[in-house]
Amino acid sequence: MNPKKLKIVLIGSGNVATHLAQALYKAGFSIAQVYSRTLEHAQQLAQTIHAEYTDNVGELVPDGDLYIFSLKDSALQPVLESLPSLPGIFVHTAGSVPLSLFERYHDRNGVMYPLQTFSKQREVDMKTVPFFIEANTQEDARLLRDVASALSSQVQELSSERRKTLHLAAVFANNFTNHLYAQAADLLEKNELPWDLLLPLIRETAAKVERLHPKQAQTGPAVRYDKNVINEHLKMLSHDPDKQAIYSLLTESIHKMD
Amino acid sequence: MNPKKLKIVLIGSGNVATHLAQALYKAGFSIAQVYSRTLEHAQQLAQTIHAEYTDNVGELVPDGDLYIFSLKDSALQPVLESLPSLPGIFVHTAGSVPLSLFERYHDRNGVMYPLQTFSKQREVDMKTVPFFIEANTQEDARLLRDVASALSSQVQELSSERRKTLHLAAVFANNFTNHLYAQAADLLEKNELPWDLLLPLIRETAAKVERLHPKQAQTGPAVRYDKNVINEHLKMLSHDPDKQAIYSLLTESIHKMD
Repeated sequence: MNPKKLKIVLIGSGNVATHLAQALYKAGFSIAQVYSRTLEHAQQLAQTIHAEYTDNVGELVPDGDLYIFSLKDSALQPVLESLPSLPGIFVHTAGSVPLSLFERYHDRNGVMYPLQTFSKQREVDMKTVPFFIEANTQEDARLLRDVASALSSQVQELSSERRKTLHLAAVFANNFTNHLYAQAADLLEKNELPWDLLLPLIRETAAKVERLHPKQAQTGPAVRYDKNVINEHLKMLSHDPDKQAIYSLLTESIHKMD
Repeated sequence: MNPKKLKIVLIGSGNVATHLAQALYKAGFSIAQVYSRTLEHAQQLAQTIHAEYTDNVGELVPDGDLYIFSLKDSALQPVLESLPSLPGIFVHTAGSVPLSLFERYHDRNGVMYPLQTFSKQREVDMKTVPFFIEANTQEDARLLRDVASALSSQVQELSSERRKTLHLAAVFANNFTNHLYAQAADLLEKNELPWDLLLPLIRETAAKVERLHPKQAQTGPAVRYDKNVINEHLKMLSHDPDKQAIYSLLTESIHKMD
């Protein structure tokens, strides 16, 4: 089947759902309908991709080919339990949810996991986003691979088990990293320094590991075990126990890994 | 004085010393001499910039205009204590060392702090590196500003107190961030997945905060407080207490900041 002829239904209207829907639309797919628990959210997204919308699972398009579930992990099961009987393939986009979760509810199932951080306020070049595919038949895996390949140049199959590990690693590399940027920004702003002084450093920190393994790229007082500086820094953070705890734990961890 | 006519002596041969020496050389400055405690290191660096070299403070060029101390913080004071009497300006390149440290040893003192991560294996475009200048006279501050401005397009004056804060923020934004990359890489490699699958995510994580404040850019299970995923991740890390401790602390910290 030509994947662009698929009748696609999107369940969800969050960050991943929004970016995926818009990338599919731009790539020439048509999305028949967007579902969200909040009608306004369904409508907002649907309007950008000329789709129908609903907040009622009873009104879901009954003859879809591909139902894409892009929901907060904890919302997935309740929604699946509330669904009427539907045809086609059920696909989710989550890193940590095993394919087997669908099996109780449906026969043809798959996963299309885009390994990227998506915020509504920011465009992402989907071509560079690695997609990880899984399905319970080879035929459906091939179909999902075709869909993902129309969006991205990096598509590969990966088991649920490995996808879960990849997602956990991504939490370290993105969620936690971004939080350290936020802590650094907070520290500067509390001292009336503009946080964007750090941007050239943040840029180079990321660019450096394109060529050097992060273990080779490590610099700073912790890896030199420069006790004077470390103690001075801990003292500076004595009024901010959260930052101090992060400083201690990560300094110790760098020293251990070295 | 034309800053390119300065007789410069470099004390140190580490990452910062190496990058700074090579940038000065490329910009048309001449470095008369490199000192390192290890003769071989002094020689290696000196050869790339056509300088003399020594491992003996007694042999330091006695008529320098600018002595740049680019040493591990803890080595700075012992070296200063061992010096013969010298003319010119003493300058260091450290984030956390106050200008006042020099005052016991010398009359004309300054700081040129490049806010960047430097490794010998990787070139850095010095033009984009922010330099922070301090000196105990306006005239010397102007001279150091002229030197730094020949290397970088981002030069400003900053007090010792504020530089210390900036350095601490840089530890979060670079040293700790890079360590999270290393932890993520370790996790993937232990599960036989190539760590560079994360590169598009790392790239976007850094690029995202060029436009969004890190607090707005935060995504993932911690900020959604997706307890299922968080507990699953903690279980996956039960055999790796270091990673588990980092996961717990940073997840809690993201949740608190939100």
